[in-house]
Amino acid sequence: MRDHYREELEDINACLVEMAHAVGSAMSTATAALLDADLALADAVIAGEDRIDAARESIEQRCFTVLARQQPVATDLRTITTAMRIVSDLERMGDLAEHIAKLARMRFPDPAVPIEVRPILLEAGRIAGSLVGKAAAVIAEPDIAAAARLEAEDDVMDGLHRQLFRELLSADWPHGVEAAIDVTLLGRYYERFADHAVSVARRVVYLVTGERQVQGTAS
Amino acid sequence: MRDHYREELEDINACLVEMAHAVGSAMSTATAALLDADLALADAVIAGEDRIDAARESIEQRCFTVLARQQPVATDLRTITTAMRIVSDLERMGDLAEHIAKLARMRFPDPAVPIEVRPILLEAGRIAGSLVGKAAAVIAEPDIAAAARLEAEDDVMDGLHRQLFRELLSADWPHGVEAAIDVTLLGRYYERFADHAVSVARRVVYLVTGERQVQGTAS
Repeated sequence: MRDHYREELEDINACLVEMAHAVGSAMSTATAALLDADLALADAVIAGEDRIDAARESIEQRCFTVLARQQPVATDLRTITTAMRIVSDLERMGDLAEHIAKLARMRFPDPAVPIEVRPILLEAGRIAGSLVGKAAAVIAEPDIAAAARLEAEDDVMDGLHRQLFRELLSADWPHGVEAAIDVTLLGRYYERFADHAVSVARRVVYLVTGERQVQGTAS
Repeated sequence: MRDHYREELEDINACLVEMAHAVGSAMSTATAALLDADLALADAVIAGEDRIDAARESIEQRCFTVLARQQPVATDLRTITTAMRIVSDLERMGDLAEHIAKLARMRFPDPAVPIEVRPILLEAGRIAGSLVGKAAAVIAEPDIAAAARLEAEDDVMDGLHRQLFRELLSADWPHGVEAAIDVTLLGRYYERFADHAVSVARRVVYLVTGERQVQGTAS
């Protein structure tokens, strides 16, 4: 009985890792859809959201079942409540990837992104992918140093976000208000995605060390 | 022992209701700070965030303690896991009110909101306050009809959001890109705040009826 229980906890963790990879793949695809104005890629992300939502539901249900049947205490209980929070972060990250894909779809066949901000969003997409990959690794194998590197990479994302605003506010922004709205929202989506990835890593660190470093930036 | 336990569950619920009212008050104050370019009000919202975060932490800790000591099952377990999710929604709503206050602060002494969109954001603030008040009432006393009315009111918020974009995209938007960025972000903050209020009500309905109506719009 206890062995089965231990296996179940490990399996829930493996599902979280898998869900994180699915979210990372959605984000990479959404960024490609956005920058290449590729409708098929945008549709793939939008269609794939159902799978991410199903993963969330399945993990939540399994956590609930463990709580109800095994009544874990101490570290095991904390593991389960942490998993329930991480799954919320990951679901939200999937939503944000979908928002980006929908924006690409809405502007198709035009590109949603003016040429000046393309390199910034390309880099934002790369960092987003790297962050979620690192978050998945931290879930799989708690590593406080790796979690700290996520925070540093999130600072890079914040820098890109500021750079985006500088482009928008430069005197010679020639693309009008609609493109400015799109770019503002896109910047927000990437920034929030990164915040949630950091939040995932912080939750794992808190689980392992008991030291709360979460400032409630993403929940 | 069991009586104390029952009281604890009721008390956690009362704390959630109180936190929802605090969040509602923060949102009303933030909207006033924004529309009247009132620095003192903006600072009050920003300073008050600590109290909302402390409420979150306290409620989360109490939920965890109940799980660890009482090992609830069935409805009681579901009540606790629902409370843990609601507290995340409420915390995020507090963050969004703070974002609005910070934007008011950043633009002070200028108003952050051009005159054309003032009435729309005034109404968005009113609806946001109404939504969180209704959500608090649903937490206090689960009421499926009241939860449904929240959904209808959220549709009004979505309509305001679209109206905001129409203003921004009208041919004679004379306020430039910076004001357009501010208004885009403000629209997003109000919309997300409303989504989270609806999410709170849906979680309560799910708790009572077992029917999931949550589409993962806000977590």
